[in-house]
Amino acid sequence: MSMKRSFIREILEAIDEETISFAGGLPSEKLFPHEDLKIATLKALENPKVYQYTISNGISELREQIAQRYTNEGFPTTKDNILITTGSQQAMYILAKFFENKDITIEEPSYLGAMNIFRLNYLKMQGVKLENDGVNIEQFENSFKNTKLTYLIPDFQNPSATTYSEEKRDAISEIVKKYNGILIEDSPYSELYFEKKSKYISASLPNNSFHLGSFSKTLVPSLRIGWIRADEEKIKSLMIIKESIDLHSCGVSQYILAEYLKDEAKYEKHLQEIRDDYKAKAIYFSEQLKNILPEFKHQTPKGGMFLYGTFGDNIDTFALVQECLKKKVVYVPGNQFYIDKIPNGEIRFNYTHSSFEQIEKGLKLIKSCL
Amino acid sequence: MSMKRSFIREILEAIDEETISFAGGLPSEKLFPHEDLKIATLKALENPKVYQYTISNGISELREQIAQRYTNEGFPTTKDNILITTGSQQAMYILAKFFENKDITIEEPSYLGAMNIFRLNYLKMQGVKLENDGVNIEQFENSFKNTKLTYLIPDFQNPSATTYSEEKRDAISEIVKKYNGILIEDSPYSELYFEKKSKYISASLPNNSFHLGSFSKTLVPSLRIGWIRADEEKIKSLMIIKESIDLHSCGVSQYILAEYLKDEAKYEKHLQEIRDDYKAKAIYFSEQLKNILPEFKHQTPKGGMFLYGTFGDNIDTFALVQECLKKKVVYVPGNQFYIDKIPNGEIRFNYTHSSFEQIEKGLKLIKSCL
Repeated sequence: MSMKRSFIREILEAIDEETISFAGGLPSEKLFPHEDLKIATLKALENPKVYQYTISNGISELREQIAQRYTNEGFPTTKDNILITTGSQQAMYILAKFFENKDITIEEPSYLGAMNIFRLNYLKMQGVKLENDGVNIEQFENSFKNTKLTYLIPDFQNPSATTYSEEKRDAISEIVKKYNGILIEDSPYSELYFEKKSKYISASLPNNSFHLGSFSKTLVPSLRIGWIRADEEKIKSLMIIKESIDLHSCGVSQYILAEYLKDEAKYEKHLQEIRDDYKAKAIYFSEQLKNILPEFKHQTPKGGMFLYGTFGDNIDTFALVQECLKKKVVYVPGNQFYIDKIPNGEIRFNYTHSSFEQIEKGLKLIKSCL
Repeated sequence: MSMKRSFIREILEAIDEETISFAGGLPSEKLFPHEDLKIATLKALENPKVYQYTISNGISELREQIAQRYTNEGFPTTKDNILITTGSQQAMYILAKFFENKDITIEEPSYLGAMNIFRLNYLKMQGVKLENDGVNIEQFENSFKNTKLTYLIPDFQNPSATTYSEEKRDAISEIVKKYNGILIEDSPYSELYFEKKSKYISASLPNNSFHLGSFSKTLVPSLRIGWIRADEEKIKSLMIIKESIDLHSCGVSQYILAEYLKDEAKYEKHLQEIRDDYKAKAIYFSEQLKNILPEFKHQTPKGGMFLYGTFGDNIDTFALVQECLKKKVVYVPGNQFYIDKIPNGEIRFNYTHSSFEQIEKGLKLIKSCL
């Protein structure tokens, strides 16, 4: 085993409380529904089964609730299509183990955590250029016809914030069908839209897809509950890996979520609060960038948690971040999101976890390092 | 991936409420400290950090408390020697991934879950005969001098209930040192002694061992919190795998346990209650076996959760369990705990989860299947 730790996890552990962090994908604590989760917790603790071992695929009530949300959106799903996982990080790990040693087509830039998991399980990654409206379709087909397996984040992608156009979603779906391949669609940010929700690509590929979801960005991360949606046959295969990894995900967390989700209207209201808050932050972040760092080219995000852009080729943002750390501000340099990590001028900013004051101060500190 | 599911997990999901189960390693729900855990939960929820992402190795308070317990028992340990895992099942998975493809010496019979994890990560298992006081030392050395890696459960072993003698503990320690190899010591049942606690073998091998613990058997399983104790260097290597698998274990669970463990006397009292209850059950189970199934040779357990024995070679307990299932009683046939799963006359009984009435009734049902 010769693996490097994730740059982001290392940074999260190294920085002190004074450092302004645009690095992690941390949701805003101010939006956590403390009181409602406490009520749900007290109800959950009344369940006589709450502390005992439970089944590997997850408690029935929670799988049912997740399935219902898919069905309501026009993607027919039952609880047997759902596998509860210890965060969507574990969902990814289970799939990487399932597809061990295979070739896989990914976006470049792509999610750092997924890339590390793929390396750990010997998947051979082929990068395809991500454009403003999704991957380059010609490049994608050229790669996918060989790999027959792809990992995509079509909604408010991490790190690029890109959202796929309807046309590109349809094109991806057609290509996956044409080669009878598999799409892994990672959707942790799909509910965090500022304008409208896009249709999942998996909905048109119910038997050729794994769709990944999580409560980490919509409710709270520390319960560590995510899920995989797939056809029943695939779910059964994944369960063997799941139960080898940790028998089952935290039972108490599952019962808490099942209680919380009983009131759908409350959850919807909560989601709308997050969207409103993050939208205001995204617009402010983008405006401050235009004022303070006008040379940083970017688009204002339409959802999710990240803003991505570039200083152009003259600035090495990986070298720059070392300087920024000394001045107590941090972001993730773009090279981290590429297979070959060659330094470039790109940056991923998280805008959800900082206050308006911190955003302005942090960007001015970065400016002072240039 | 062509893996079979665990017999035990499959059984747990297939049986109905009427079936008397001596199969799973389920702790008794009646002993769960519901009220104290509720108090701890309410305190934990007051912590402003309770819902946010946390560090991969586990929250500092809990690692500190676990380390202190080792130190109190004469095994000097700091929080940097501890990695919190999602149950000790995940501890095993992380180690199997760390030692991927290696040869490993194991007891026969051994823990089914560990054997499945080793297979999934391509470890090549070499079985060594388990005797009444631990592995056969000569066989062990012959195997270990080649593998330099071993997985043992020295206290109230699963499935055999065997506890290693002081002499064999010392002999194992000497052999591990002699070949500068590694011991993985799995200790989920060590606190469940009826008479006295044995010294961990790892205590004499602080830099050549991984010691695994869990709250699943001493408190409640559904929080899914276990840990690995090792030297700091090894813990750092394992963290890379840990964070790839699920970023970190359930934060809420960790804060609940840290609150609960603040009152050490309360925890000790709780442990004593479990020991007293399980001891009475073990004695009763053994007596009933002598009355109802006198042909089943076994020793009365001295701790843990299992009673192991044999009908001798004339009975195939794997075939028998299919008949038992029809009559609504179930156990785990001994062949499941061997590398080559060849049917034999052995059985593992769990005695902690059934009432006295169920024990008598269940054994009579088995008798009727013979």
